[in-house]
Amino acid sequence: MKPYRLAARDGKDTIIEIVGRNGAGTCLIGEGFCTIIAGPCAVESEEGILSAARLVKTLGAHILRGGAFKPRTSPYSFPGLGLEGLNYLALARKETGLPIITEVLDVRDIDRVLEVADIVQVGSRNMHNYPLLRDLSRQKVPVLLKRGYAATVEEWLLAAEYLMAGGNGQVILCERGIRTFENLTRNTVDIGVVPLLKELSHLPVIVDPSHALGKWQLVRPVAKAAIAAGADGLMIEVHPHPEAALSDGDQSLTGDNFRRLMDEIKALAHLEGKRM
Amino acid sequence: MKPYRLAARDGKDTIIEIVGRNGAGTCLIGEGFCTIIAGPCAVESEEGILSAARLVKTLGAHILRGGAFKPRTSPYSFPGLGLEGLNYLALARKETGLPIITEVLDVRDIDRVLEVADIVQVGSRNMHNYPLLRDLSRQKVPVLLKRGYAATVEEWLLAAEYLMAGGNGQVILCERGIRTFENLTRNTVDIGVVPLLKELSHLPVIVDPSHALGKWQLVRPVAKAAIAAGADGLMIEVHPHPEAALSDGDQSLTGDNFRRLMDEIKALAHLEGKRM
Amino acid sequence: MKPYRLAARDGKDTIIEIVGRNGAGTCLIGEGFCTIIAGPCAVESEEGILSAARLVKTLGAHILRGGAFKPRTSPYSFPGLGLEGLNYLALARKETGLPIITEVLDVRDIDRVLEVADIVQVGSRNMHNYPLLRDLSRQKVPVLLKRGYAATVEEWLLAAEYLMAGGNGQVILCERGIRTFENLTRNTVDIGVVPLLKELSHLPVIVDPSHALGKWQLVRPVAKAAIAAGADGLMIEVHPHPEAALSDGDQSLTGDNFRRLMDEIKALAHLEGKRM
Amino acid sequence: MKPYRLAARDGKDTIIEIVGRNGAGTCLIGEGFCTIIAGPCAVESEEGILSAARLVKTLGAHILRGGAFKPRTSPYSFPGLGLEGLNYLALARKETGLPIITEVLDVRDIDRVLEVADIVQVGSRNMHNYPLLRDLSRQKVPVLLKRGYAATVEEWLLAAEYLMAGGNGQVILCERGIRTFENLTRNTVDIGVVPLLKELSHLPVIVDPSHALGKWQLVRPVAKAAIAAGADGLMIEVHPHPEAALSDGDQSLTGDNFRRLMDEIKALAHLEGKRM
Repeated sequence: MKPYRLAARDGKDTIIEIVGRNGAGTCLIGEGFCTIIAGPCAVESEEGILSAARLVKTLGAHILRGGAFKPRTSPYSFPGLGLEGLNYLALARKETGLPIITEVLDVRDIDRVLEVADIVQVGSRNMHNYPLLRDLSRQKVPVLLKRGYAATVEEWLLAAEYLMAGGNGQVILCERGIRTFENLTRNTVDIGVVPLLKELSHLPVIVDPSHALGKWQLVRPVAKAAIAAGADGLMIEVHPHPEAALSDGDQSLTGDNFRRLMDEIKALAHLEGKRM
Repeated sequence: MKPYRLAARDGKDTIIEIVGRNGAGTCLIGEGFCTIIAGPCAVESEEGILSAARLVKTLGAHILRGGAFKPRTSPYSFPGLGLEGLNYLALARKETGLPIITEVLDVRDIDRVLEVADIVQVGSRNMHNYPLLRDLSRQKVPVLLKRGYAATVEEWLLAAEYLMAGGNGQVILCERGIRTFENLTRNTVDIGVVPLLKELSHLPVIVDPSHALGKWQLVRPVAKAAIAAGADGLMIEVHPHPEAALSDGDQSLTGDNFRRLMDEIKALAHLEGKRM
Repeated sequence: MKPYRLAARDGKDTIIEIVGRNGAGTCLIGEGFCTIIAGPCAVESEEGILSAARLVKTLGAHILRGGAFKPRTSPYSFPGLGLEGLNYLALARKETGLPIITEVLDVRDIDRVLEVADIVQVGSRNMHNYPLLRDLSRQKVPVLLKRGYAATVEEWLLAAEYLMAGGNGQVILCERGIRTFENLTRNTVDIGVVPLLKELSHLPVIVDPSHALGKWQLVRPVAKAAIAAGADGLMIEVHPHPEAALSDGDQSLTGDNFRRLMDEIKALAHLEGKRM
Repeated sequence: MKPYRLAARDGKDTIIEIVGRNGAGTCLIGEGFCTIIAGPCAVESEEGILSAARLVKTLGAHILRGGAFKPRTSPYSFPGLGLEGLNYLALARKETGLPIITEVLDVRDIDRVLEVADIVQVGSRNMHNYPLLRDLSRQKVPVLLKRGYAATVEEWLLAAEYLMAGGNGQVILCERGIRTFENLTRNTVDIGVVPLLKELSHLPVIVDPSHALGKWQLVRPVAKAAIAAGADGLMIEVHPHPEAALSDGDQSLTGDNFRRLMDEIKALAHLEGKRM
């Protein structure tokens, strides 16, 4: 018997409607769609996130990403702008109409993050943070649940089950690479997990090749691979000036590179019969 | 340059004094000592934890372990008794005089856990939980920091750095096995990390073979290996009736097996010149 | 400085011409092409390999695979038909005109394998078998070099370097999954390695999703992912009756499933500008 | 049912007698003994191996190791002296009376290696080399079978089964570290495998901490851990002048460090009731 119940496939496919608030548009994530989340790793400044938002909006992204609270391996690294960053994200939504996804790290920040976020992200480091999952299970907000970087598929689906068992069925699974012995890439994208999850669960599946690989040159080919494998969307780091980014510049696409990615993804989505 | 500073070795060794409150004795953890933490995985009942405490006290353990808040992979598994479990731990301390170590999962529980805990445990799933680490960094309590099951040594020392950078230098590192391809054991004890940490850091290092291996038959040999490799102590799961345990019964030692372990560890500690 | 020299990219792309002997056609493997190798895991009988060969030929495969010498984890498993299997492969080539790829395990079998093979396969277990690589480096035959299941990219390129340093520049790299902690799939396809190898080396890169995943349902999506990521071809297990296969039946496609895969790969190759 | 039969424990313990030829002494490997194999990674010169042999003999080693045929990741690295190296090993045995262990890589070298070797080593890269295992299964020589660096315990015992199924029951299992995500050490010693193998199999188990860790400072503590965990012996790299070694100098002990290791291992073996 499978240890998860609510997350298990039963013939249906869950399609999640992102209802953009405060003037943002709605969009759908799930089987039959190809939804693109794009933006910088971190919100670095008001002007920074606005220019990034304009850029990805112009190039066809559906949702804006940007971290206000950043989990950093070192206590001495830039931790994000916090509440100030959330305010800048709200401004970016107001101007561009793009729904916002941003990460929450601390249960005590949930209320304030929910004032801005149209989708809440639970990052890899928090996939096993059960108090956070329990609290989010009682909210009416879509949750993008990244796979822990050493989590098995079963553990991942059980983390989704925490959200669903508490009443929140709006869960999007995001593969972002697993930890292996190979070290020429930051992590290893487990591409087989895309069709495997489609077989095991009814939840939408997207892929984040940027964090997984850590090298912008590899992002476009692996993004295409994800869609070809059946993923319902992508999360892509885009920065107008990657060389000046405060975090993860090496993996961020420039506007030109993101345009090329979008062109190729559109053609591929068309071939696969996915709406975009 | 090493990314951690306060955790880095500089010729000294940190020895942490556990000041047992409410009648409990004090003990030391660090270079030159062999300190044994023992007890059941979870606090299951008042009588259960009292009988386990009496057992491990009689057999020479220095500190009592017992989980009141249990991180469980499935939302449907026994999550621990919570506050009730903390109360039972306090009773066990009062009766046996053993200092208490117990895990905290949620930043909102820190105050209540600190009313009972002489040492706070940060579990593997929370090694990357930076809000929890930041809050604990401002407390005056020793923290046992388990290695994340896919954390590199550098990430682990940076998690310790979070605690130290906030002002809490009382950090004990606990190796509890890492995730590998081998699946006849639950995880793989990285024994080389013991001397490696002794070279890189001044912090005490202990090993938890019970959670690492998941099979009680392997616990005693690997416990001995840990001390022979230079570890400053052990964390061992002991349950008067493992077959009836609500969690992790397969890896728990009976009283008889724990007695044998203690006898052999004592002889080994003597050989190694460690006080026990 | 990179430790490999001859395998390193220097602006060119190597395209390997498979010169089918004894009436077989020629085909090309490398940048700009999409070459499909298909057939059963093992040669099981004369009629078996002939019917498989006819099937994959009809459905558009370019090269026939079939193992005469099988490396088996257990000494009690079917080891392949050996020389008899080679003879059957020769018959299949004669009838269908498909070039043959088959594996060599033992240096003493090289001459006899070369009497039949148009491409020689070095399997995952032999990627580090340097005497075998040295001997093959002195032959004039294309070598398909599978990645060891725990080999880093650098070790893999150094294995290619063994072949090239001895004079054999006709090396095809084949990703077949690496060993990780995830066990719902047999191995984990490292999809990022496809664009990474294209950046680091001039050698052709193909992907074998069948052995990597161990489940036929996942083969088609991951095959498409491989081509979308830039791979120059695929190696696919096809068996007219997978349920009766002597080895690896779970991962073999039926004729119907292979037809669907070929249809989708053709559309994708067309989109990517690859000749097929 | 277990997939291996002859390697499976059935209440007995296999103790292997090394019958040193040409004047060398005999020694035993197995339960109840603590047997030390020591010497340089590679045979580098006549004088080099003779001085190393004298050194380890004086300090109490039972068997001399030295590689004449070296498997090297790069085709441009020193591959060993080959037959010349074998001759030097024979001289070292003649002078010191130490039995010899050396590695064989190529089935065509078996006869010549057996003229010198008292134990034949199958290295990690060849654990899956079934033609080599089959040929050695028909010889009357003890085989030290290193674990493949990504081999599961079951695969390893099945490799032993290849040797035993062919008639050679003199198999010694050698743990030498597995490949994991941790990269501050070369590999990760799987210490739990020592008691696990003792439970699953009757074959002797030794540990090679030198190759596993790649850093001489960690060798002594992990060697002690191995014996404490129940290993029947150790394989240790010793080089009179590690800084001048042609391979693996970083992991080789000097004479002084090996003396200290031997002193501590003797005390530990005495405590554990192992003859040494």
